[in-house]
Amino acid sequence: MEAPGSRSEPPPNPEYSGSYVVSRPVYSELAFQQQCERRLQERRTLRERLAKSCSCSRKRALGVLKTLLPILDWLPKYRIKEWLLSDIISGVSTGLVGTLQGPFPVVSLMVGSVVLSLAPDENFFILSSNGTASNATMIDNVARDAARVLIASTLTLLVGIIQLVFGCLQIGFIVRYLADPLVGGFTTAAAFQVLVSQLKIILNVSTKNYNGVLSIIYTLVEIFQNIGNTNLADFIAGLLTIIICMAVKELNDRFKHKIPVPIPIEVIVTIIATAISYGANLEKNYNAGIVKYIPRGFLPPALPPVNLFSKMLAASFSIAVVAYAIAVSVGKVYAIKYDYSIDGNQEFIAFGISNIFSGFFSCFVATTALSRTAVQESTGGKTQVAGIISAGIVMIAIVALGKLLEPLQKSVLAAVVIANLKGMFMQVCDIPRLWRQNKIDAVIWVFTCIMSIILGLDLGLLSGLVFGLLTVVLRVQFPSWNGLGSILSTDIYKSTKNYKNIEEPEGMKILRFSSPIFYGNVDVFKKCIKSTVGFDAIRVYNKRLKALRKIQKLIKKGQLRARKNGIISDAGSSNNAFEPDEDIEDPEELDIPTKEIEIQVDWNSEIPVKVNVPKVPIHSLVLDCAAVSFLDVVGVRSLRVIVKEFQRIDVNVYFASLQDHVIEKLEKCGFFNDNRKDIFFLTVHDAVLHVQHQVKSQEIQDSILETISLIQDHKDPLELMEAELTEEELNVEDEAMRRLAT
Amino acid sequence: MEAPGSRSEPPPNPEYSGSYVVSRPVYSELAFQQQCERRLQERRTLRERLAKSCSCSRKRALGVLKTLLPILDWLPKYRIKEWLLSDIISGVSTGLVGTLQGPFPVVSLMVGSVVLSLAPDENFFILSSNGTASNATMIDNVARDAARVLIASTLTLLVGIIQLVFGCLQIGFIVRYLADPLVGGFTTAAAFQVLVSQLKIILNVSTKNYNGVLSIIYTLVEIFQNIGNTNLADFIAGLLTIIICMAVKELNDRFKHKIPVPIPIEVIVTIIATAISYGANLEKNYNAGIVKYIPRGFLPPALPPVNLFSKMLAASFSIAVVAYAIAVSVGKVYAIKYDYSIDGNQEFIAFGISNIFSGFFSCFVATTALSRTAVQESTGGKTQVAGIISAGIVMIAIVALGKLLEPLQKSVLAAVVIANLKGMFMQVCDIPRLWRQNKIDAVIWVFTCIMSIILGLDLGLLSGLVFGLLTVVLRVQFPSWNGLGSILSTDIYKSTKNYKNIEEPEGMKILRFSSPIFYGNVDVFKKCIKSTVGFDAIRVYNKRLKALRKIQKLIKKGQLRARKNGIISDAGSSNNAFEPDEDIEDPEELDIPTKEIEIQVDWNSEIPVKVNVPKVPIHSLVLDCAAVSFLDVVGVRSLRVIVKEFQRIDVNVYFASLQDHVIEKLEKCGFFNDNRKDIFFLTVHDAVLHVQHQVKSQEIQDSILETISLIQDHKDPLELMEAELTEEELNVEDEAMRRLAT
Repeated sequence: MEAPGSRSEPPPNPEYSGSYVVSRPVYSELAFQQQCERRLQERRTLRERLAKSCSCSRKRALGVLKTLLPILDWLPKYRIKEWLLSDIISGVSTGLVGTLQGPFPVVSLMVGSVVLSLAPDENFFILSSNGTASNATMIDNVARDAARVLIASTLTLLVGIIQLVFGCLQIGFIVRYLADPLVGGFTTAAAFQVLVSQLKIILNVSTKNYNGVLSIIYTLVEIFQNIGNTNLADFIAGLLTIIICMAVKELNDRFKHKIPVPIPIEVIVTIIATAISYGANLEKNYNAGIVKYIPRGFLPPALPPVNLFSKMLAASFSIAVVAYAIAVSVGKVYAIKYDYSIDGNQEFIAFGISNIFSGFFSCFVATTALSRTAVQESTGGKTQVAGIISAGIVMIAIVALGKLLEPLQKSVLAAVVIANLKGMFMQVCDIPRLWRQNKIDAVIWVFTCIMSIILGLDLGLLSGLVFGLLTVVLRVQFPSWNGLGSILSTDIYKSTKNYKNIEEPEGMKILRFSSPIFYGNVDVFKKCIKSTVGFDAIRVYNKRLKALRKIQKLIKKGQLRARKNGIISDAGSSNNAFEPDEDIEDPEELDIPTKEIEIQVDWNSEIPVKVNVPKVPIHSLVLDCAAVSFLDVVGVRSLRVIVKEFQRIDVNVYFASLQDHVIEKLEKCGFFNDNRKDIFFLTVHDAVLHVQHQVKSQEIQDSILETISLIQDHKDPLELMEAELTEEELNVEDEAMRRLAT
Repeated sequence: MEAPGSRSEPPPNPEYSGSYVVSRPVYSELAFQQQCERRLQERRTLRERLAKSCSCSRKRALGVLKTLLPILDWLPKYRIKEWLLSDIISGVSTGLVGTLQGPFPVVSLMVGSVVLSLAPDENFFILSSNGTASNATMIDNVARDAARVLIASTLTLLVGIIQLVFGCLQIGFIVRYLADPLVGGFTTAAAFQVLVSQLKIILNVSTKNYNGVLSIIYTLVEIFQNIGNTNLADFIAGLLTIIICMAVKELNDRFKHKIPVPIPIEVIVTIIATAISYGANLEKNYNAGIVKYIPRGFLPPALPPVNLFSKMLAASFSIAVVAYAIAVSVGKVYAIKYDYSIDGNQEFIAFGISNIFSGFFSCFVATTALSRTAVQESTGGKTQVAGIISAGIVMIAIVALGKLLEPLQKSVLAAVVIANLKGMFMQVCDIPRLWRQNKIDAVIWVFTCIMSIILGLDLGLLSGLVFGLLTVVLRVQFPSWNGLGSILSTDIYKSTKNYKNIEEPEGMKILRFSSPIFYGNVDVFKKCIKSTVGFDAIRVYNKRLKALRKIQKLIKKGQLRARKNGIISDAGSSNNAFEPDEDIEDPEELDIPTKEIEIQVDWNSEIPVKVNVPKVPIHSLVLDCAAVSFLDVVGVRSLRVIVKEFQRIDVNVYFASLQDHVIEKLEKCGFFNDNRKDIFFLTVHDAVLHVQHQVKSQEIQDSILETISLIQDHKDPLELMEAELTEEELNVEDEAMRRLAT
């Protein structure tokens, strides 16, 4: 037995062809029979299963209830002795971290931008009763904040509704479209937005609240225009905070294996800054911007103003998807660690219900923070009980400690936020690697980033999403394709461009097209074929028709004589069937040649008329369809047309390596109405062997002299003469569009 | 030599494996070398070509000019004697047809809807000076029509600009996205819109000019509400016209081979109706709605009001694409017939410039009518001279004949339009066929139709376009996949589901995934793998870790003893390593087993602890990637993770039939940093043979007794012990998203 690499081609004896057909059946038919049997079998199994399942339907109903309300599942099983203590410890720790660490979630920023756009400062100017402040306008802080809370809670309600709908529609998979490059670009843009919004606070420079397209740029410009008004006390406090925070964070990071807990520098800085501001009375002495008033107590439940929904729809959509995607990405980490699986749609429903509920209690959109989750897990949290306890701790902290923070400079808080942005901005360094690995991914990154800066985060994310989808379509539309040849004398076919020692079988072209064939890329597919075979089948056919007409004319005029073994020119060089370069035709020339005289011409030899008929050096075209993963109606029609166009000029088209479902589609769309199934082969090599065998057996039958011959006694019209009919059929392509042109 | 169908597998001798590797090289490296050489060669060729081309650059400049302004090409070559006469005949015929036949272009309708929305009747009410008409409001017809003409010409200008931009950006290919199902649905919706708009005229019932979403439905409702106000004279005239026109058209169609020219029934009906209306003075006697006033003369050029652009952007985009697509689809018919090729982008530029120019002369958006084109061609038109002549004829007709049509009832004109809609509505019959052939295409049809009715034609077309693109993405995202086995003892691998007599090689699973692997479908890909192999690799690994820990504990406690040839339970059935059903873990249990005692367990035999470790019945997984047409960064990373996950549980992953550019992408994205290239094979069969050979040679070395053994003197840490490191690496997946969760 020889190695497969050195398999030589089998001798072309007729038995071979026969045994080949038997051992490799035309597989679609076989597949169909087998599928039918299999389906029957499946139905039988299903029926048996159904019979069994009826008995346990009650059990299942309880299961469904537990799935919808997981608390019914875990609370009755709660092991108080084992779990309660660790839940309490974990809850308290998480609560403290939540209070101390000022985290920066993207969702806050997105909600913030909506709130600012719907309730800008300008809406809350009040007339100052005393005329002292000439330029400074007074803002009704209380009314403004109340309006903003209302907007935020309306947003929460809408986000909840969207999430619930998504969950019920089972479209949790859309999160997959938030690909890493898109998220990278989006996050960097978010960091930039945060930077600008905090910069204004650090400098204590007031600007208008710009919104919509390019608002971030306008804000930046205005900040620099008013940079002269910078409050030095705020600026210095902010700058110091940034430097200290970043330095300590760097140390935390570098020595993370040596120190037990990272230094909570944000908390330390905040406490010190509050003390300084209070001691030095920075507000009075330096006009510094301080926190000033933290409202306490809780708002009663209220129905948010639903009429705002239409204004915040795009933003809500973005927020709903982003909040959910963050939560699921964190959840997956623990799902892997503790070996359970996450049901994306269940999560969507859970977040949806939770947000709808909190929408009535002036709450913020819910999502997940990795750091807090990590604390809860590492301190031994077992169940949601820990979550309830940590929420309680945060609540106490807000109520009790809020008052103490009132003298704190706002610029210090802003600086803490900025100090945390470093990681986000460092993502820019990913771009060169991405560009090297996959240019399209890099483009998605940059596009999403720029769009999120220009259009705002919500519209930016949406446009990034759509752009990402378009790149998928484009990648499918402009696929790679190769002309193939066989490696030495093996059955392996590889690109003639990328490999040396490739031989194309004589008189054949093999094309591999690496993409589905559908309405978007049929033109590309046709171009690939044209470029592979080296000529345009329609053009060749038209030129041949033209030449035929001229030959007929010349024969009628007596300038040419037709013999059994060819056409002989009488007039020599003086024949006037000269084709002008600027080729505008007589309408009567376009008539199909009459059937009075029918001629068979060997188109690859010299023709007695000077029509420039392109040579067709091949007799077969093999399409390797292994990578054609689906077809649509337009794709099937194109394949039919292509087969016909090539048949008209005596080139046979064969298909190799089609997948079963693709063949099924061809069957459904009527491909086999005008094509036989024996043009399909299991592999390219099978097709090539078949063609080579065909050619050899033909050569024995035909003599070359006979091919250039005039068959005046030919009774059946030649295939070439059916042009009118075929033309009409070939034109079905843009039928729908032409119908618009009445 | 035997037929390839019956090739038996080669005997697994060691030489075979060697020769195999040599004869089928790891092809990416070979490909790269060859590509480099080829590129050098190409550069050389390019340089030579450049050197040659300098000499003919002047000739080329002229060529470019002629491409931009084709008239420079054909006018100097105009053969007056031969062509002028037929051009004149053709021009006159086309002009007459254009005048007589009231054609119905979709573009008119689209323009009309924009005009109506921006200049509704309501804007032009005037106070009636006499109090006679109590309910009827007067409309300033002249002002309204002037405003509407201005809007139409502004639209023409904007459409021209869009087309020019599209042409310059070379994105003529977007027309391909107007697939036939989409156009079918769109046209039917357009017909419906026309029907409703004309119905109102036939009944002579006035309604408000609704616009935007659902306007067509509102209009329809109002028509039926006011149906009592129907003007009987108009209704009867309209109904008669419809019946007559449709009947005669049916006859025309049925006897088209017997009659020389179709009966121009529209012209005949129009003339008769005008005469009757004039003779019977229908306006006065029956209050019929007549044409009344046709303005004559030409408007001077003027700059259209550019400030309207923003309001008509979406509509202009749709109109620009539709007008262009119609023209190109007609053009293609003649391109095929006369053997020239159409440059889509050139057409875009031509239409763009033409529309921009006409925008200043109160003109309508230009497109192509198939019927007029057919007349021009069949009557012998040779050049654009015929076009100029036919335009002249139409102009004369408008100026001269307009006045004569003023007594005509509007309902007759409306009826003529409706009689021409039949073909459009008949397209509904395509749906069942489409559904049978390709469900997605049918859904696109219906979706586009409904959207175009609900949202209006412009937004409907856009949403249909986007929907079509989404279906492409979904088709790529949810691809077909199959577990494979070989047909009897051949090298052909087919789906185990669809075929009988398929045998899966022992201890192996083969998966064929028919789609690119990219961010949108990596989850689907993983599910396919899980479903093919029948277990979850991560879960298996975690359960094994857990069992290992329990075995270690038991060994420490002395309840288990480890021997060279296995682990022996001392305590028998009383061992307490029982795994509870409700399985919540102690945090300390999750520690990685210490390296003090290292154990090698045969996971497929009985384990002495009661941990439910899923059995892994395979040693190899082969991924058939023939249909993976591209990968992105996320896809490559998933492949890396999958290989690692399976390696941890001693399953080797092999790749077969990858395309060259896919291997290149793997190389670029660092796949080979942690994977050797010898897991890649040219075909599935090669991979299977390789694995089978490996297994056989291993079986000779290993004795089964040795596999269940404790290797206390083992020095190197086992692969299983590297879990911590691997876990971190495996978690890189949603990194970008988790970064948002700070």
